[in-house]
Amino acid sequence: MLSKNQIKFVNSLKQKKYREEHNLFIAEGNKIVSELLNSSIVVKQVYATSEFLRKTNIDAAIERFEITENELERISSLITANEVLAVCQMPTCILNIEAFKDKLTLVLDDIKDPGNLGTIIRIADWFGIDSIICSSNTADVYNPKVVQATMGSIARIKTHYLDLAVFFNSSKSLIQNPIYGALLEGENIYTSKLTSIGFIIIGNESKGISENIVPFITDKLYIPSFSNNKSGKSEVESLNAAIATSIICSEFRRR
Amino acid sequence: MLSKNQIKFVNSLKQKKYREEHNLFIAEGNKIVSELLNSSIVVKQVYATSEFLRKTNIDAAIERFEITENELERISSLITANEVLAVCQMPTCILNIEAFKDKLTLVLDDIKDPGNLGTIIRIADWFGIDSIICSSNTADVYNPKVVQATMGSIARIKTHYLDLAVFFNSSKSLIQNPIYGALLEGENIYTSKLTSIGFIIIGNESKGISENIVPFITDKLYIPSFSNNKSGKSEVESLNAAIATSIICSEFRRR
Repeated sequence: MLSKNQIKFVNSLKQKKYREEHNLFIAEGNKIVSELLNSSIVVKQVYATSEFLRKTNIDAAIERFEITENELERISSLITANEVLAVCQMPTCILNIEAFKDKLTLVLDDIKDPGNLGTIIRIADWFGIDSIICSSNTADVYNPKVVQATMGSIARIKTHYLDLAVFFNSSKSLIQNPIYGALLEGENIYTSKLTSIGFIIIGNESKGISENIVPFITDKLYIPSFSNNKSGKSEVESLNAAIATSIICSEFRRR
Repeated sequence: MLSKNQIKFVNSLKQKKYREEHNLFIAEGNKIVSELLNSSIVVKQVYATSEFLRKTNIDAAIERFEITENELERISSLITANEVLAVCQMPTCILNIEAFKDKLTLVLDDIKDPGNLGTIIRIADWFGIDSIICSSNTADVYNPKVVQATMGSIARIKTHYLDLAVFFNSSKSLIQNPIYGALLEGENIYTSKLTSIGFIIIGNESKGISENIVPFITDKLYIPSFSNNKSGKSEVESLNAAIATSIICSEFRRR
């Protein structure tokens, strides 16, 4: 049985201010929760159907509540609730700029769409990129829509929210990583020399990379279009931010 | 002023059976409708705010209705209605198998998510792929969510819905294009020889390529993961169908 207070508590975590107050977030569905239970993420509570509880091994330290599918619907953010909802602790990611020295890191400059952010986290996981720097205005990684779109990759990718200009100023003096940016002008990514370390900046869905961030870019890149009906209408023939990220990561990794 | 009948008519086009009955579909928003008005798509009606009508040149053959933002909300499929909704005629795409002989064509095997389908159409447009073959169970390209996700690319990409097995049987005897399929096993796409003609099959979001379609594949490809934490959990470390499509198209085109 779900109490009114439990329903209120879980639903409050759909809002950023309560997630931050409690330092907790929610994840849903058989696949993602199973993944989180086997990850370094600390799961605090599991609300699940008897079927899920029967087939899943849950650590004794985790509070578990057997609920019906109807009760699950009352706390779910999904269109169709799926067996289980977990309340998890937000991991603490300590920022150590020197840790970025020898690797490839994505930097998101105001990615606003939760689906795009979740997909980008999944792409990072696929391409072995373990950290993402997000501008303060990027969507919240613990928004339930983002968590769902990561398909569990959220358990493996570290995210840091900060002011990008401040970050690049500090990183410039500490480490000298190349800073790549995808822009409308620059070098064709398919023929550019790309390294296996550095920062790759992905700009906002409609505005691209912020004006005050562009000067930090050391290597400007662009993804050429192969469309035959190009007639200068570049505003229409653009790529979604997550799609651009996947093409860029693919190019960096395949070499 | 919007009449009750107009509201009923436009809203009916959100359902496939009425779209097919009238051979019409709806598109929304300043950017996409402006694009469609300048395309080969036949626009029949425009429902727009005075602001949109003032700045846009609309052919006299198109019925136009000046409406308020509140009225637009009543017929819109968007969370936030955006200046204009257009009722457009579905173009007739005549299937000519020999037309596929010299080009690259995407084949979608049961892509179910409208957002994925729209994004794939946008990717095809970017990479100069002008036709897409869809299995009968693929989401409807004229679903409003698909139309929106194409960001206008729907005006340039021809789509054909048919039984894929029947199609590949006919195409095998008429043209001998290679048939590429993205699978979990096969040749590493980054080191494979890829041609500039052929069919590329993209499988369903959770089930991949259908069992009865796999035997038609002449060239099996896979996208390798660069994740460090690979532990055989391949069900989680998968790529979204649209993301996989973008990486595959990028590989075919960059060569």
